[in-house]
Amino acid sequence: MPELRKDPVLGRWIIIARERGKRPSDFVIVESPGSGGFCPLCPGNENTTPNEVLAYGRESNIINSPGWKVRVVPNKYPALVIEGDLNREGEGLYDKMNGIGAHEVVVESPNHDDVFSELPSEHMIMIFKAFQVRIKDLEHDDRFRYVLVFKNYGKAAGASLEHSHSQLVALPVLPRKIESELAGALTYYNYKERCVYCDIISQELKQDIRVVCKNEYFITITPFAPRTPFEMWILPIRHSSAYHEQDDRQLASLAEIFSESLCRLDACIPKVPYNFVLHTQPLRSPHMDHFHWHFEIVPKLTSIAGFEWGSGFYINPMPPEEAASYLRESLERIS
Amino acid sequence: MPELRKDPVLGRWIIIARERGKRPSDFVIVESPGSGGFCPLCPGNENTTPNEVLAYGRESNIINSPGWKVRVVPNKYPALVIEGDLNREGEGLYDKMNGIGAHEVVVESPNHDDVFSELPSEHMIMIFKAFQVRIKDLEHDDRFRYVLVFKNYGKAAGASLEHSHSQLVALPVLPRKIESELAGALTYYNYKERCVYCDIISQELKQDIRVVCKNEYFITITPFAPRTPFEMWILPIRHSSAYHEQDDRQLASLAEIFSESLCRLDACIPKVPYNFVLHTQPLRSPHMDHFHWHFEIVPKLTSIAGFEWGSGFYINPMPPEEAASYLRESLERIS
Repeated sequence: MPELRKDPVLGRWIIIARERGKRPSDFVIVESPGSGGFCPLCPGNENTTPNEVLAYGRESNIINSPGWKVRVVPNKYPALVIEGDLNREGEGLYDKMNGIGAHEVVVESPNHDDVFSELPSEHMIMIFKAFQVRIKDLEHDDRFRYVLVFKNYGKAAGASLEHSHSQLVALPVLPRKIESELAGALTYYNYKERCVYCDIISQELKQDIRVVCKNEYFITITPFAPRTPFEMWILPIRHSSAYHEQDDRQLASLAEIFSESLCRLDACIPKVPYNFVLHTQPLRSPHMDHFHWHFEIVPKLTSIAGFEWGSGFYINPMPPEEAASYLRESLERIS
Repeated sequence: MPELRKDPVLGRWIIIARERGKRPSDFVIVESPGSGGFCPLCPGNENTTPNEVLAYGRESNIINSPGWKVRVVPNKYPALVIEGDLNREGEGLYDKMNGIGAHEVVVESPNHDDVFSELPSEHMIMIFKAFQVRIKDLEHDDRFRYVLVFKNYGKAAGASLEHSHSQLVALPVLPRKIESELAGALTYYNYKERCVYCDIISQELKQDIRVVCKNEYFITITPFAPRTPFEMWILPIRHSSAYHEQDDRQLASLAEIFSESLCRLDACIPKVPYNFVLHTQPLRSPHMDHFHWHFEIVPKLTSIAGFEWGSGFYINPMPPEEAASYLRESLERIS
């Protein structure tokens, strides 16, 4: 059973997911998954994954059979396990609990070589819908406080399988980064009585130097203080704290802007590895006037070294205004 | 001039260190410095670095000449620049200031191929002394609030030059991670009226399952909630919040345990890349009963992906008790 441990000074949680029998020499510097060979996410290999929890697009009613367009399965090597009690306990001044949680893989397409950003809009909508459905389902489990939805694209960004997929992790504690974000947004709200993200959107629209693109419901910006070159945030223009409550028209609009934003990024730096992370309200939370759900897309272009470890500061060689200008012009240059 | 920008929600600072003329395609995925060729840190090339600010071991009085054993020079490509005013200003709801600071390189040895962990004790003491002297000097500059001392060893850990060196960055703001650490330690102190690190040391000595080694003044442990396999902390056993106030006997003891700890790590995983970071009190701070200076050594063995970006959680495949046991046995196994 994995274990959750809390740093007694920072309150930061760590998952100790012991891989038994590993000796020190087994820790390779950077794990680089090979390409080719057997793929457990490809159609026909459904029996090699745990039983699916969701599938879209299949005409038959036979679960774990081919014919799906998007498929969600529990992770075969989960960081956290679904069965058991939390058993919070102390060990002197330290705190720990069982590593209870859910870890699911969203297989984004049946085609091994499909790339997320190039999927047709109707297909991408199914993926965004799957995130919603899984969040709503996991919300019923009282042991969980937050569902983290994210994608690692490319080896350098941590993808361990080539086949296009994203992941959901349901956590029994609120992640510290989300907690800080909620606290920062609340401080601003208490002072101004306005949502800080709404104010950001309004200032970005006015200044128009960090806006990458925009459609009916969404806006993509390069944030004022980005951690990496070409970092992008996708936010709903109208205030909302809950991703899972967006309706189908909004999801269609989200698919459209997500695809456009990633295509613009790819036109600037072809096949750049990236991570995206959904930031949304905690499970079972009432609507929050101070928090605004959004996606953060972080390209993997710089490496984290002692300075970042020690300070939490990031050094970014590209001002977001320049990045936005490249991203705005990128598709125009190609066409 | 670099620019410091603050994320309006998290309060996280970013350094925008623009590298002019860089186009998107110039951002390579992972910058890997080549080996061989010209080394600006080697003796004889002193004129290719900015003027040195400190040198130990040279018999002549000629600055920027060979004959030194440890040499400190301003970084030729600094993340922050020393000249100018902070000029804090707003841009709508955003905050920024000039990227004022000092960025120095501690050249740890004249020999290009020397490895920090293998330096003789007397030599290592000079390096630890140099950190102290530079912190004390930079403390006189009222614009600076903190000096971050760190080392990147190995390409994967971000080292951009092969020649053994560490770095100091004087910052005009308190780094968010240090701020969180100070706040966490203060909360504990207010509740218990004891230093949390002193309590950690006392519990570690009692449990004796995460102690790597110990000498007269210092202890090395694998922390209870480590971010990576084989993470180690080196702490002074007696309470102290200020690294720069350690006397020569303590520095000798520090050099001894630092060298032993890194040799044990190297015996477990030869030539593993790592970062170390000094955590000490802010500049011009009075003694702190609640904070305890220490070094954190973080081997580069896992990669940071979407999950870590989004949550601030880390997944670590090796329990610190196992790591400590490997580290304790490592030198014995070799000899």
